[in-house]
Amino acid sequence: MAAARTLRIGLIPGDGIGREVIPAGRRILESLPSSLNLKFNFVDLDAGYETFQKTGTALPDKTVDTLKKECDGALFGAVSSPSTKVAGYSSPIVALRKKLDLYANVRPVKTTAGNSNGKPIDLVIVRENTEDLYVKEERTIEGPNGKVAEAIKRISENASFRISNIAGEIALRRQNIRAASPTSTRDQPMVTITHKSNVLSQTDGLFRETARRALAAEKFSSVFVDEQIVDSMVYKLFRQPEFYDVIVAPNLYGDILSDGAAALVGSLGLVPSANVGDGFAIGEPCHGSAPDIEGQGISNPIATIRSVALMLEFLGEEKAAAQIYAAVDGNLDAAQFLTPDMGGKATTQQVLDDVLKRL
Amino acid sequence: MAAARTLRIGLIPGDGIGREVIPAGRRILESLPSSLNLKFNFVDLDAGYETFQKTGTALPDKTVDTLKKECDGALFGAVSSPSTKVAGYSSPIVALRKKLDLYANVRPVKTTAGNSNGKPIDLVIVRENTEDLYVKEERTIEGPNGKVAEAIKRISENASFRISNIAGEIALRRQNIRAASPTSTRDQPMVTITHKSNVLSQTDGLFRETARRALAAEKFSSVFVDEQIVDSMVYKLFRQPEFYDVIVAPNLYGDILSDGAAALVGSLGLVPSANVGDGFAIGEPCHGSAPDIEGQGISNPIATIRSVALMLEFLGEEKAAAQIYAAVDGNLDAAQFLTPDMGGKATTQQVLDDVLKRL
Ligand SMILES: CC(C)[C@H](C(=O)O)[C@@H](O)C(=O)O
Ligand SMILES: CC(C)[C@H](C(=O)O)[C@@H](O)C(=O)O
Repeated sequence: MAAARTLRIGLIPGDGIGREVIPAGRRILESLPSSLNLKFNFVDLDAGYETFQKTGTALPDKTVDTLKKECDGALFGAVSSPSTKVAGYSSPIVALRKKLDLYANVRPVKTTAGNSNGKPIDLVIVRENTEDLYVKEERTIEGPNGKVAEAIKRISENASFRISNIAGEIALRRQNIRAASPTSTRDQPMVTITHKSNVLSQTDGLFRETARRALAAEKFSSVFVDEQIVDSMVYKLFRQPEFYDVIVAPNLYGDILSDGAAALVGSLGLVPSANVGDGFAIGEPCHGSAPDIEGQGISNPIATIRSVALMLEFLGEEKAAAQIYAAVDGNLDAAQFLTPDMGGKATTQQVLDDVLKRL
Repeated sequence: MAAARTLRIGLIPGDGIGREVIPAGRRILESLPSSLNLKFNFVDLDAGYETFQKTGTALPDKTVDTLKKECDGALFGAVSSPSTKVAGYSSPIVALRKKLDLYANVRPVKTTAGNSNGKPIDLVIVRENTEDLYVKEERTIEGPNGKVAEAIKRISENASFRISNIAGEIALRRQNIRAASPTSTRDQPMVTITHKSNVLSQTDGLFRETARRALAAEKFSSVFVDEQIVDSMVYKLFRQPEFYDVIVAPNLYGDILSDGAAALVGSLGLVPSANVGDGFAIGEPCHGSAPDIEGQGISNPIATIRSVALMLEFLGEEKAAAQIYAAVDGNLDAAQFLTPDMGGKATTQQVLDDVLKRL
């Protein structure tokens, strides 16, 4: 038998319910069937608003260094945003994405067999993760008529190309998986480019053009390429979500679209994401720190468990990922152990146990 | 009997189905009951992509001058966007909003009694209409690694204040109308401020702070003021739209949110808007030029008819507006004459006739 592959995983629970769900993610990794021949080392890392309050920085250098030098991947929980402006504080996840050049934010949104009232949704939003308004270059001028603030929206050919390229690759990979499934109804992979080039002809125009060029590559010849203006994309997403496969978008539109898509499947507590760079991936549930339910032991671990699978997928462990997805689908379809956000009464622990049982 | 008030209305059909719906809007104005004591003069004006192709400009000076000097209000249909970049072309409606300082884009989204499967939705999006990324200040640099394009997002205290102020006033006005209705379930007006200040602390931070300040005025003491980060706003809008009353947002978020809200009520063909400045209003259906159905006589005139009412509301003619809204609600609830976007088989003309009959 071949030597086990050992993956070193950074655990960054962050704030709020991040501390309740990340341990569940760790348990999933520890409990993978031994036939997969995977071993994990874990390292606990700090980031978040509480870290900021204790140390004056929301993202300690040690966290970034350890991830860079010692880890293959990581799990990130959530961070609280202070309710009023706090000098010196800025979101550590946005910084982390940039510092590790995790240029793609991948957000699959999917109904399961038992969980689609209506047509099944199975789409993924591939969000550019390093630029757009997230460069956070802002300034404020005190004018004669009051303050005027400006922010830069930056779109580069480079970043637009690589995000569109990975979107195309994800579309092909999904098609391969579908090809193996007897129930699949889609016969051609599709990528929908989202932009607002009717107003932003240079920035979003560059994104649109570059995406078209990237997706015109020979390797994507089987992919149907389409586009939607962002406002109309939100409309269509809501009216006919079953139509979409891969949606590629600049950072901010991707942020907005992925929350919109999450609403379609019932709860943000179900929706995973991965921040993906070359050879590195951070799994991150999309739900945020959820101060309203913190400490009650009822946060939904599904988004994190799916994020674990998504991270593994991008670390080349597709088989492990598939087993985790199947266990989650089993839990959801049985609908016996669901957290309150899903209309159930189960605790985080009960949902985790049920998924572990199915693994 | 008092002398009739005469309103001079510019008619700008623009492109595509704009030419089918604007005449319907005119007919509504011409057919208002004489008891309202209103007269209308109309002036036909050009704008749009076809105008650009003929004259080299999408928004002729004559159109702007006539609106400024001779009109009290206007109706705008829609404009086509060219499918690839065309040098020198830029959207005339965006320019018009700025040139006439129509600083508020008001977009009510509402289910009618017969048309809500689920809880009734009755909200309005109040979108800042002059700045944000719509200032269209862009540049492109040829870097060593390819092109980099930048756009300015500009948020001013001034514009943020006046949009928040009008949002508050709209909330109060809506509360007055509700107070007169026996079926109303909301007992307090509410304004939800939308922003992304967790990332854009200066620009969206300024919007948020200024909106808070504007809405803290004594006259708004009865208004409940709330806020939502834009991604979470889209999520909530899809999950519990019945919760919202007035949503105030910077330009781009307002653009996206209003399409999202339109999806909730079944068709963009139902959703009106008004571009409002001091003493001037342009009614504009939200649906766009819809090249797919152009020329078939089946475009839905409801969005335009409601835009006529909305325009009148902002020109101080609330009674006329209320009568038009009621006639439209009657048409929708009867569901006898509906255009294909609503699942019906009626033509534009049949829907118009049915609304006129109810007026
Ligand atoms: C917390 C916030 C900075 C973040 C973002 O805007 O990217 C979040 O909304 C997300 O989608 O991960
Ligand atoms: C056509 C386009 C420029 C416009 C906008 O973005 O404002 C449209 O989407 C709208 O909402 O009126």
